[in-house]
Amino acid sequence: MKEYHPGLEGYHPGLEGVIATESSISDINGEKGILSYRGYSIEDLAQKTSFEETSYLLLTGELPSTSELEKFTKKINSSKELPPKLIKLLEHIPKSTKTMDVLQSSVSSLASFYDIEFDAESLKKGKYSQDYFIDVSAKILGSIGSIVAAWNRIKNCQNYISADTSLNYADNFLHMLNDNEEASPVVKRIIDASLVLHAEHTINASTFTAMVTASTLAHPVQVIASAIGSLSGPLHGGANEKVVSMLDDIGSKNNAKEWLDKRLDSKQVVWGMGHREYSTKDPRAKILTTMVEDYFKERGGEVSSKFETAMELEKACEERLSKKGVYANVDFYSGILYQEIGIPVDLFTPIFAVSRTSGWLAHWIEQVGNNKIFRPTQNYIGQEPRELKK
Amino acid sequence: MKEYHPGLEGYHPGLEGVIATESSISDINGEKGILSYRGYSIEDLAQKTSFEETSYLLLTGELPSTSELEKFTKKINSSKELPPKLIKLLEHIPKSTKTMDVLQSSVSSLASFYDIEFDAESLKKGKYSQDYFIDVSAKILGSIGSIVAAWNRIKNCQNYISADTSLNYADNFLHMLNDNEEASPVVKRIIDASLVLHAEHTINASTFTAMVTASTLAHPVQVIASAIGSLSGPLHGGANEKVVSMLDDIGSKNNAKEWLDKRLDSKQVVWGMGHREYSTKDPRAKILTTMVEDYFKERGGEVSSKFETAMELEKACEERLSKKGVYANVDFYSGILYQEIGIPVDLFTPIFAVSRTSGWLAHWIEQVGNNKIFRPTQNYIGQEPRELKK
Repeated sequence: MKEYHPGLEGYHPGLEGVIATESSISDINGEKGILSYRGYSIEDLAQKTSFEETSYLLLTGELPSTSELEKFTKKINSSKELPPKLIKLLEHIPKSTKTMDVLQSSVSSLASFYDIEFDAESLKKGKYSQDYFIDVSAKILGSIGSIVAAWNRIKNCQNYISADTSLNYADNFLHMLNDNEEASPVVKRIIDASLVLHAEHTINASTFTAMVTASTLAHPVQVIASAIGSLSGPLHGGANEKVVSMLDDIGSKNNAKEWLDKRLDSKQVVWGMGHREYSTKDPRAKILTTMVEDYFKERGGEVSSKFETAMELEKACEERLSKKGVYANVDFYSGILYQEIGIPVDLFTPIFAVSRTSGWLAHWIEQVGNNKIFRPTQNYIGQEPRELKK
Repeated sequence: MKEYHPGLEGYHPGLEGVIATESSISDINGEKGILSYRGYSIEDLAQKTSFEETSYLLLTGELPSTSELEKFTKKINSSKELPPKLIKLLEHIPKSTKTMDVLQSSVSSLASFYDIEFDAESLKKGKYSQDYFIDVSAKILGSIGSIVAAWNRIKNCQNYISADTSLNYADNFLHMLNDNEEASPVVKRIIDASLVLHAEHTINASTFTAMVTASTLAHPVQVIASAIGSLSGPLHGGANEKVVSMLDDIGSKNNAKEWLDKRLDSKQVVWGMGHREYSTKDPRAKILTTMVEDYFKERGGEVSSKFETAMELEKACEERLSKKGVYANVDFYSGILYQEIGIPVDLFTPIFAVSRTSGWLAHWIEQVGNNKIFRPTQNYIGQEPRELKK
């Protein structure tokens, strides 16, 4: 029924500024450049916790005790090895299919492979304790990273690598992706911290998709699959891929300033710059900058030409754009970093999805804990009633 | 940034009454019980058009001319036969997987099977004409019904039935589902009209999911897959399944009144009664009532006990609930009808998905034609900033 709430008649495209939920998962202070999960700053979490710990925090509201972490990690570990039938299924998907689409497709059928139970009646009767939610989340988290790694090998006609449950989440992901090529401690740390940094960011389009799907009391794997569909869109995920090809276009640091001037004059996007939520530098970009520096320090101080170009471009952008509140965002350095450590470009967004699965699951738990189905209204601007003559 | 629009500070759970879009696809007049697609009443469309014609109307804004319909039907037909590799993929999904999840999973990887192209850059440059949108929609519509029919046979260890392109959409669906069991004209008509009735209904949760996913410029098959995830939730799709088991519970028409009294006294849901959008009888329920009558007329006038129970229950509900604006909705009779004509109960929601794919695609086209990414805001009600001691 239209105009049910007369105070809300105004139409705000993209629901900008419209409150869609009350949430206690994460918070952004865009002016000060602060992002926090459950009250803890992203800097603290990226420096002091693993992806497993941060996931537990997002899911439950508190960091795990030693024994809670052990139990949670064990549950995740026991789902890392993909069932042989799921590997067979992946082998039957055309190799030309995009990794995000493969991820959406395989997550959609995950409930039967991993025996993940969800039943709206049991939920309503309060049968699902925190243990249940942790358990389901661990199964989905455990498998999703392995799917990305396994698919990347399958599509490249390489053999499947079994999970190594002695490794933490980030290390095992690299192991299943690259087999026996041992990554350096800094590289392992970069992947782990990057998973922490991307795990949650209030309600953007994919998280909102997860919430809307969750509000119908759909199964959690359907919730995550829907969100993956949303993240696959180039306006959402994928900006770090574009940063990498943009830097390729620029070519060298000497071209950066001139390239930027032309780009801004023709009113084209500078990828990785600016964020709707921040009017200062994205706190995640700050952390990534430090990591890039650590990475090059480990390699003897020699900086890649792409990183030099990026730094020069960032400097030029700050001169021209900082007055407008436009600074580097998380995508600006994450792509360079991934590329430097040998992650294929088409895995950038899928890794983002793996990480964000924690946040999506946290929003699923929050949504079903206090649910009302999403059904906004519309302004009808179409044809008046007309007769069908036939 | 919070409180960007000070006038929108109020939080309305489920975004009830909040305008999320301007749309010219469909309109509901809940007080008068009118549902129209592109200005035409649902009664006219269900009586005078096929699913193909209504789909064309939803997608383009106008009913097709004879030659436009011929071209559109030909395009749909050429996608009805599933590629052998897609059938193989379906055969590798565990047979215990729910049909809605199989549908989400297989639609996710449809772009490579059907060579469906979508590229945000081409969209931005205005390279996509109406022909492009019709073409993509026909590929998705053509295949989605066949996937449901094929999966139902595969999971029951039956052979795949090839599409018969001489049949219209509804007839071919029945053919691929039941092989050579020829359906009666009334049964064929019921499926066709039911597809028309369920094709669109403004922005409920699944359509809204499609819009949010579309707003990231995700590929249309990812948009449809996300929406399927949302429709799979028991609060959204699935009510007609519940009506059927509710009528089984009641047992016979003599029990209807007493059952209802008990049910209402204990404040439990009466499935298929009442709809957030209508304060009178759902116009789609009216059409279905007539169809049920036609069906029994064709069978010599003998009415099934379940239909008798349903009619008795509806009468009792009207006596007790019509003052509150609670009347039968579309789900009340669609389940009975499907069951009478031999559709397995677990295909009710998947058939709904097949039909609604038209509406989802229409909203995809509308969204990308005037796009702004969805990013509503939240009221943060969580932990204050705290230090991570470690």
